[in-house]
Amino acid sequence: MTRRDDSLPVELASLFLGPKGENADLFERLLTEAFRDHVFWRRNFHPEDGFEIAELDKRAPAYERSASVLAQELLGLLAELKGGVPFFSPRYAGHMTSELTMASLVGYFATMLYNPNNVALEGSPVTTRLELEVAAQLAAMVGYPPAEAWGHLTSGGTIANFEAFWVARNVKYLPVALAGAADELGLADLQVDLCGGRRAPLGALDLWRLLNVPPPAALDLADRLLAAAPDRAAAADAVARHTLARVGYQEYGRRLALEFGDPLPAAAVLVPSTAHYSWQKIVRALGIGADQLVHVPVDGRFRMDPEALWATLAALAAKRTPVLATVAVLGSTEESAVDRVDRILEVRERAVCDLGLAFPLHVDGAWGGYAISVTREPDGARREHARALADDPGRRWPSEEVFAALAAVAGADSVTIDPHKFGYVPYPAGAVLFRDRRVRELVSTEAPYVFQEESPDSVSAIGPYILEGSKPGAAAAAVWLAHRVLPLDASGYGRLIGATARGALALHRRLAESDFAPFRIVLLPEPDLNIVCFAVAHPQLASLEQANRLIGRAHARMSVAAGRPSREVSYFVTKTLLRAEEYGDAVLPLAHELGFAAEDYRRAGGVAVLRSTLMNPFFADRRGKTDHLEGFLAALRAELAAALEEVTS
Amino acid sequence: MTRRDDSLPVELASLFLGPKGENADLFERLLTEAFRDHVFWRRNFHPEDGFEIAELDKRAPAYERSASVLAQELLGLLAELKGGVPFFSPRYAGHMTSELTMASLVGYFATMLYNPNNVALEGSPVTTRLELEVAAQLAAMVGYPPAEAWGHLTSGGTIANFEAFWVARNVKYLPVALAGAADELGLADLQVDLCGGRRAPLGALDLWRLLNVPPPAALDLADRLLAAAPDRAAAADAVARHTLARVGYQEYGRRLALEFGDPLPAAAVLVPSTAHYSWQKIVRALGIGADQLVHVPVDGRFRMDPEALWATLAALAAKRTPVLATVAVLGSTEESAVDRVDRILEVRERAVCDLGLAFPLHVDGAWGGYAISVTREPDGARREHARALADDPGRRWPSEEVFAALAAVAGADSVTIDPHKFGYVPYPAGAVLFRDRRVRELVSTEAPYVFQEESPDSVSAIGPYILEGSKPGAAAAAVWLAHRVLPLDASGYGRLIGATARGALALHRRLAESDFAPFRIVLLPEPDLNIVCFAVAHPQLASLEQANRLIGRAHARMSVAAGRPSREVSYFVTKTLLRAEEYGDAVLPLAHELGFAAEDYRRAGGVAVLRSTLMNPFFADRRGKTDHLEGFLAALRAELAAALEEVTS
Repeated sequence: MTRRDDSLPVELASLFLGPKGENADLFERLLTEAFRDHVFWRRNFHPEDGFEIAELDKRAPAYERSASVLAQELLGLLAELKGGVPFFSPRYAGHMTSELTMASLVGYFATMLYNPNNVALEGSPVTTRLELEVAAQLAAMVGYPPAEAWGHLTSGGTIANFEAFWVARNVKYLPVALAGAADELGLADLQVDLCGGRRAPLGALDLWRLLNVPPPAALDLADRLLAAAPDRAAAADAVARHTLARVGYQEYGRRLALEFGDPLPAAAVLVPSTAHYSWQKIVRALGIGADQLVHVPVDGRFRMDPEALWATLAALAAKRTPVLATVAVLGSTEESAVDRVDRILEVRERAVCDLGLAFPLHVDGAWGGYAISVTREPDGARREHARALADDPGRRWPSEEVFAALAAVAGADSVTIDPHKFGYVPYPAGAVLFRDRRVRELVSTEAPYVFQEESPDSVSAIGPYILEGSKPGAAAAAVWLAHRVLPLDASGYGRLIGATARGALALHRRLAESDFAPFRIVLLPEPDLNIVCFAVAHPQLASLEQANRLIGRAHARMSVAAGRPSREVSYFVTKTLLRAEEYGDAVLPLAHELGFAAEDYRRAGGVAVLRSTLMNPFFADRRGKTDHLEGFLAALRAELAAALEEVTS
Repeated sequence: MTRRDDSLPVELASLFLGPKGENADLFERLLTEAFRDHVFWRRNFHPEDGFEIAELDKRAPAYERSASVLAQELLGLLAELKGGVPFFSPRYAGHMTSELTMASLVGYFATMLYNPNNVALEGSPVTTRLELEVAAQLAAMVGYPPAEAWGHLTSGGTIANFEAFWVARNVKYLPVALAGAADELGLADLQVDLCGGRRAPLGALDLWRLLNVPPPAALDLADRLLAAAPDRAAAADAVARHTLARVGYQEYGRRLALEFGDPLPAAAVLVPSTAHYSWQKIVRALGIGADQLVHVPVDGRFRMDPEALWATLAALAAKRTPVLATVAVLGSTEESAVDRVDRILEVRERAVCDLGLAFPLHVDGAWGGYAISVTREPDGARREHARALADDPGRRWPSEEVFAALAAVAGADSVTIDPHKFGYVPYPAGAVLFRDRRVRELVSTEAPYVFQEESPDSVSAIGPYILEGSKPGAAAAAVWLAHRVLPLDASGYGRLIGATARGALALHRRLAESDFAPFRIVLLPEPDLNIVCFAVAHPQLASLEQANRLIGRAHARMSVAAGRPSREVSYFVTKTLLRAEEYGDAVLPLAHELGFAAEDYRRAGGVAVLRSTLMNPFFADRRGKTDHLEGFLAALRAELAAALEEVTS
């Protein structure tokens, strides 16, 4: 293959089936190729067995009846499916769903016929390797050291985030388990690396300091303890006996109180106030508790405010509350805001010595992770921002701040990136990556010392280290084939994602410049990636509650949510409520611009906005007969007028 | 459709693509039908937009190059996939993996083109409905009351089991939260239903009794508390503030100690000693702790021993250790043993009054759940055992005990059933079902009172109640179409599963009757479902360790595990180690039969066995040129001889 050094760029029109199925002939050819290839694989396996199903069998009434039932019921299903949502169309600009790459669809189907389960290596020798390749590609894009990183696919972002936190908790409490084991093994003199190059013996650390050993130092300490012990297996067992995973929270709390006599508050989990609702679920399911979730305020661009993060950390340190982990979001669900990972890392660095607070940083890039591809040259080198900006004829995207944040993710301990979102591949395909592969051992259900023998070259099993117990190898093949066609750099995914970001900026500008009188469109700031949100004002909307209702009615007219058939919808949007209890003052300017006061905002519970995710690269890139930007604006005008009538009548 | 009252049975040969792709023509016709149907749906959506990709665009060098890369890379993938495992063949009798139904494959592909996400109702109005239909079908098969049950699909059995336990924990601690809220709301006089029709005021219960309120009584109590409160929303909020989910384990433990002054041990989780390793993962991730996992001994048929369960419960009650939940397994991973759910339910019933111990029962039917279909007539009525037995010409399967256990699952609080195992559909498709839909509210991240308005007729969203954050609607459609072709009763899945069980019994008998001298095949008892396990003795195998190594070598020769290409394997098996630390004395008879003593067994750590899962209905049903039963035996003889040479040389 000479793809990389070829001067021809990836043609986006060749990636998708197309809004009108323009590439149907190519797709069908590849599909039948994949199917027949599989059939003849079957036929070549022990041909001497002959045929289990004879041609004559197929003429038997029972066979004919069963086959007819299948064909008939399939027609029924196809009829049902037509009630679905036309995600493929440039007219769809609602949720984070879109048309998929042909590569991923054909790759998924081709592999599904083989039905490998990537949790069991014995049943998936090929697709497990493809999954580890895909994870390595994502890790390389992020900038993790290849020999140290580890990652795998999950069923989605929630499970990926869950797993990152499950791991983070095990790392957090590891020094406590090590201290317990060291005490038993007579190794309490083992030195621990603390901030500023200082060291202290493990046995001399109190509970607070054990809970604030930086994550890499904790993993190094575990290595050194196992190496220093006379019997590695016995030492590993001693450590395991002191872990939270083994003992459980209830008994753990009792033991800590007994051994340290130190009633530290439960550890906090820091997320930006834009964080996805799934973080609630995760801390509940893990037994951490929703009360431990601390929302760090965001700035006017809906990015976690680094100053506010520092203030939050200082307050927690003052109360001697440990921090289990901090989450930075790369592409918030509502606004596609990109948290300044570069500045958050600086804050974290400072906190270790200045506040005595150390914690893992997890990046939730479920949505925006693939955008990191714009920071990579085709040869894998880091791009310069100026070159990335030059790809945009309007020189607007990516902004310097977004670019810096994307490039900084390499400094985080773990990151979630969903191929089934901005990777344009079918569900289910989330991914979680860890900077330091040693963390795997902490969640493995097998004895840790077993794995020391693993050769780095062989394909290693994924199953022992992850939460899920079965996982389609087809998903790995789908992502793998998509990455072959569209590499994880500026020439591949960067090009596609850049097209959608420019589409969003074009829509944002047109909405800002257009006259909607007597309506007034009140926009959120320019998005970091590709989501445009806006509220709507009108002289007849006397209260914020009424303005929020208008958004609800307009959404019902521009979606299938209220049972409207999709053929009656000309453009699709979605809506969201920016809740006062999560966003705090960050949404106040929006309320003011709508003409309402702070007390209106709090009473209404938040500001409702219409929300458009631009994923279709053809939206602003006029190729067909319809100018979709113009069409969207015209549809919005008409639907707002109709919605107003519903609200005020 | 007149399928149900038609006298022709389902023809199993029409369900699958076939070991030699015999049904390839039918499959390809349905596949292209589904694909073209989708293309023309696209074309009919706003035809006035014209085409975004013109025919002339496709002649441009950049397009041609991109399309060529796709076709080339797909060929590369197809070549890779040929290194996979021939699950489709009757020669494959290893893991729980098999050929899939054509219905599920075509249904999956047809729906994948639409890419619905069943976590978001707005993006999956059709497939969310199909998923709820499928869950209702499974619940009806189990025997849950239709109006009260609730269920959904998951990415697999581990997540399904995880969710069942997440729910069970919330139900377990609910009375404690209710007591806390009642105290605040002045409702401490509320009556609680206790065993034997007795009642007591909520405020009078101590911590031990609060943790032993039977699950349905706890849910009723929550309803009554919300109804009695003057402000329902405020009351729901008060309850939420006292839940473990909100407070987190650490703070919860502190509060309980403070309020009740009662240092109860952490709650135990009871599983049979055959339980899947994922239970370890689940109790670790939930923060329950692996130490809280209690293995209940199994009997000679590898089923949880009800007497041993009673003894375990009595011992826990004597130590005042609460029981978080008990798990019964329907089809153990190694032996396909079916726990006597009927007798376990009796033990649970007795424990409430006699031991003061109440707890939820979860059935892990990830593997064997679909076998419940043999207990259903096509009209949904419960079959009689005699009728089920009459389906087997040999009158051997299902045994009366297995039938009673399958029929009793209706009495469990929750059950896991994986369509992607015994349902013959592609990954990812697990399912979890709950007897009482009210439990959903306990894990919902939205305020519970919000959901009171939901109309029972409308399609309700799945997302708020489950762990996962995205989920392919295609999986729901695949299961749905499979169930249309093969109903969940004796005429459908019952027929298919019966065929595999009879294949396993036939293999078991042939292995028992055949002469392998100088080898001796030492079989586990007849399987409850369709897995045959056996150890191997030989005069030259001087130690159990050596006998176990022989199994390892034989497995390497009869699988692709050691990198062997699949074309060189004539029959596939897998292997497993029945570990002494889990199985205890249940495996001793096997060691004895091999000629080894109890101390050999403990020293070796367990007994290794070859394991054959019979999923292919054609294995023992001779249709092609090869007698696979005979072929399997011949291959086994040859591979054992070769393996012996490797072990003893």
